Amino acid sequence: MKLARFSVQGQVKHGVVSGDQVTEISGNMFEKYTLTTVRYRRADVKLLAPVQSLQSFGPGLNFADHLDAGREVDGRWPELPKYPEPWHKAVSAIIGPGDTILIPYDSPNQGVEHEGECVAVIGKRCRRVSPDEAWSYILGYTCGNDVSERFWQKNDIFYWRGKGSDTFAPMGPWIETEIDPRKGVDMSVRLNGRLVQHASTKDMIFDFGMIISHISQSMTLIPGDTVWSGTTGHPEVMRPGDVVEVEVGGIGVLRNPVDMEKRQAGR
Amino acid sequence: MKLARFSVQGQVKHGVVSGDQVTEISGNMFEKYTLTTVRYRRADVKLLAPVQSLQSFGPGLNFADHLDAGREVDGRWPELPKYPEPWHKAVSAIIGPGDTILIPYDSPNQGVEHEGECVAVIGKRCRRVSPDEAWSYILGYTCGNDVSERFWQKNDIFYWRGKGSDTFAPMGPWIETEIDPRKGVDMSVRLNGRLVQHASTKDMIFDFGMIISHISQSMTLIPGDTVWSGTTGHPEVMRPGDVVEVEVGGIGVLRNPVDMEKRQAGR
Repeated sequence: MKLARFSVQGQVKHGVVSGDQVTEISGNMFEKYTLTTVRYRRADVKLLAPVQSLQSFGPGLNFADHLDAGREVDGRWPELPKYPEPWHKAVSAIIGPGDTILIPYDSPNQGVEHEGECVAVIGKRCRRVSPDEAWSYILGYTCGNDVSERFWQKNDIFYWRGKGSDTFAPMGPWIETEIDPRKGVDMSVRLNGRLVQHASTKDMIFDFGMIISHISQSMTLIPGDTVWSGTTGHPEVMRPGDVVEVEVGGIGVLRNPVDMEKRQAGR
Repeated sequence: MKLARFSVQGQVKHGVVSGDQVTEISGNMFEKYTLTTVRYRRADVKLLAPVQSLQSFGPGLNFADHLDAGREVDGRWPELPKYPEPWHKAVSAIIGPGDTILIPYDSPNQGVEHEGECVAVIGKRCRRVSPDEAWSYILGYTCGNDVSERFWQKNDIFYWRGKGSDTFAPMGPWIETEIDPRKGVDMSVRLNGRLVQHASTKDMIFDFGMIISHISQSMTLIPGDTVWSGTTGHPEVMRPGDVVEVEVGGIGVLRNPVDMEKRQAGR
């Protein structure tokens, strides 16, 4: 099932996507809801980021083929991590399908990199669960783009702006509840139509069960929180006018244009 | 004025504290509200953390006399920072006055340290403001305790659990809207009644205007977000049975007991 958050006539609603139709639901997507009789054509609504996650966690390096990209950031060849090294992605960074990724006008690189990822959405409060138990706390999965400004990522102590600046967390187009990343789900990124990243969730060093279990040992994950897969290979720099697509098998495509942030008069 | 969030008979409300009374408000604390005729005795309500901040930022090292404490964490003597190095404190870590700070049973140090701080609460959406402008985006100030597990802080890449574990962000007792940290506000911490930290907001390397301006260059701060002052001197380790008090002049006292987290059966 595909659970979506969308706006129509200025109102934010939740619904179930089926083909070209969106059926509105009443109730809480995370608890109990029922299908209403209100239906929209998909083309008539604006899909939003499926959750406004209060807490989004990236796992640090999680694909062996991204380790040498890590070296380019830090100047050192990273070792295979022994456990996930989670970090927060800011709430303010979240945008939805079709929204524009903005390169900050003060970006030292004058460009940002894509990181196409599979994103697990937490469905239930979750604290001190085992890796096996963790899977049952996941509502479903969406596509995410962990947009990164590498100069800031490298030169700041933390990733707060390197990965948390406004528009750096596109998510969508919806939450798919029926895929299983343990069986291997295809993740790919296309930049202006050209394939630039490609991997399988099977190649994650720490799978979602392990990452969620690890985080839950220290903090309570709450419905709508997200845990990102980490990225693969060698992301490329995106420039104004580019279009980036993250596709996760069985979910769909998250498509975002890229532009340069406009400087306000007097700033 | 002292703006409080509190629960009474199982309901969460907002109000204005005056002496021993709390007057309930209707409307939104950040926008428009009016005093109602409903009053409670302070002793009859449970004060909660005054905001459930979606984004809480610490500034990294922000008091010169805490630099050598930084050396104990990293093994290196840190330089005076050239700009703030913000990091996120997790939503799940927030607790209120009187709530118990829990030492995780798997804490390598089997104890956590206090960091008493003055905390600015953002009142209005804030993006790319100057240090001078930033002050007008602050609703007021509360007391905060940036509880830290130093082994995790030192050995993890990020502070996610070293400073973000459950119960590691006590805040309260309310938001005071009428103090001005630019004029120097006293910050002190007492551990079991003994003074263990003492400083003035005048000694902040980056004042709130500078920190908020810096963060706002990259991300949108939203009402209820908090920006912490950073801490001073040499925090001490807290053990089960301790009581820690953070007092900020003109605000009041945030008091929390400390205990060891109980291990669940079968874990």
